[in-house]
Amino acid sequence: MLNRPRVIVNGEIMEAANASLLISDLAIQRGYGVFDFFKTINGSPIFLEDHLDRLYRSAENMHLDFGFDRHSLKAILFELISINDMPQSGVKITVTGGYAADGYTLDKPNLLITQQPLVLYNDANTPPLKVVSYEHQRQMPHIKTIDYLMAIWLQPFIKQNKADDVLYHNNRLITECPRSNFFIVTNDGVLVTPVSNVLYGITRTQILRHFKHLCAIEERNISLEEVCHAKEAFVTNSSKNILPVIKVDEHFIGNGETGPLTLKIKKELLELIASETSNAVFFR
Amino acid sequence: MLNRPRVIVNGEIMEAANASLLISDLAIQRGYGVFDFFKTINGSPIFLEDHLDRLYRSAENMHLDFGFDRHSLKAILFELISINDMPQSGVKITVTGGYAADGYTLDKPNLLITQQPLVLYNDANTPPLKVVSYEHQRQMPHIKTIDYLMAIWLQPFIKQNKADDVLYHNNRLITECPRSNFFIVTNDGVLVTPVSNVLYGITRTQILRHFKHLCAIEERNISLEEVCHAKEAFVTNSSKNILPVIKVDEHFIGNGETGPLTLKIKKELLELIASETSNAVFFR
Repeated sequence: MLNRPRVIVNGEIMEAANASLLISDLAIQRGYGVFDFFKTINGSPIFLEDHLDRLYRSAENMHLDFGFDRHSLKAILFELISINDMPQSGVKITVTGGYAADGYTLDKPNLLITQQPLVLYNDANTPPLKVVSYEHQRQMPHIKTIDYLMAIWLQPFIKQNKADDVLYHNNRLITECPRSNFFIVTNDGVLVTPVSNVLYGITRTQILRHFKHLCAIEERNISLEEVCHAKEAFVTNSSKNILPVIKVDEHFIGNGETGPLTLKIKKELLELIASETSNAVFFR
Repeated sequence: MLNRPRVIVNGEIMEAANASLLISDLAIQRGYGVFDFFKTINGSPIFLEDHLDRLYRSAENMHLDFGFDRHSLKAILFELISINDMPQSGVKITVTGGYAADGYTLDKPNLLITQQPLVLYNDANTPPLKVVSYEHQRQMPHIKTIDYLMAIWLQPFIKQNKADDVLYHNNRLITECPRSNFFIVTNDGVLVTPVSNVLYGITRTQILRHFKHLCAIEERNISLEEVCHAKEAFVTNSSKNILPVIKVDEHFIGNGETGPLTLKIKKELLELIASETSNAVFFR
């Protein structure tokens, strides 16, 4: 593993300390860009095709033709992963609006790829989460844009409320946390996750795709009230897999401990990820 | 005037071609930042104190303590204006979330100041505007953040609709255009502008502060329907002052030409700006 991990800016590999964008870029001027993020384990990208599908979908939706087809993008991704040689990592691909002479009009996008060491989460280093609810609807929720204005702004609010993260709701229907999808287990043992106005996370997709044998699964609206009376709750995202949620605002979920279905799904998810690692076909 | 205008990054004056931010900045990673923009005429900043009031308010609201008090900020602003020596210009001050090791947590903000030549608008080069309405509520509308995700994304939509700009509405109550405030003149000759969920523009503020002798002025909700039946309409912003609006969606406003009250307010606004120029007290 390199002491100073390399990054890629528009196809060029360099040290992170040299990786910059001119200040005319529309990410800096207008907060305009999309990204995706996947992890690698022992050099194998996890659920890479799903992440690339979403990246190209996000970019196309936002009029960002960044000039790398899937083949070329994979080639530089694997080159970076090979050079940096990190045992576990998070890889982030960002596409910005490009250098705008007038500070407003889209130009040739800039493509940034960064890789950072990732601490893999396990029960020992991740206590269950407490979340605080907040009314906010993300704009363009289905697209993975770089807009985390509200999420970053809410950091002090989360601290003040002695919580670990914020759970957005829209007129008391919950949507998602800023970087993860939300699931509950009802008292009837049904796994439910919001269907509207959320980003479809890749871990969320895996659960809906592969784990129907474990329990009934529903995608539908969930009120804050229903969350507070749920038997179990957890969040999912690509870096942390599954994290149990034991408190929402003032309400403990279930008996305030990680629930059995949460543990069962987590176990199968880790197995699925492990099979991704061993099945991974390297590009070169 | 310099061939290649200088800019300032964190207090250091440099050519724009060298002005960059590391890609770990939270504007690039998370679309996090605020800005303000004022114009200069013959080297005099117009309504500078109002713009600086708003900049410091935006920065404080967004937890961005950028380390320049008003005195030091003015000093470098006037140094830049003096060096670039542009007859007319737009000056943009941007404060970003800073370099975040984890790509998420606010750090020491970066301060960017750019200056560009500004074509002063007059009747000859600015035909009246046609706007198309679109349902969207900006997040944190009172704060001048860098979030123009929806505005940039809508550029093709505006073109498709043969319009010049978009007029946001929230459940059919109009709010603002992405970079300007909206005013109508009712059939009773009352000047009205939305009061809720909008950014309070500095030109808007000048009109409310100084022009009560010209007509009755109201700040209140305005429905899209009321706009379509208005006698006159115009938008205001700091670079273009006042631009008449003659069409909203399929509806012509009044008789489809610039209205008399619009012209009267524009005349007085230009006089107010001229007095700013001659009254301007230079910092050094």
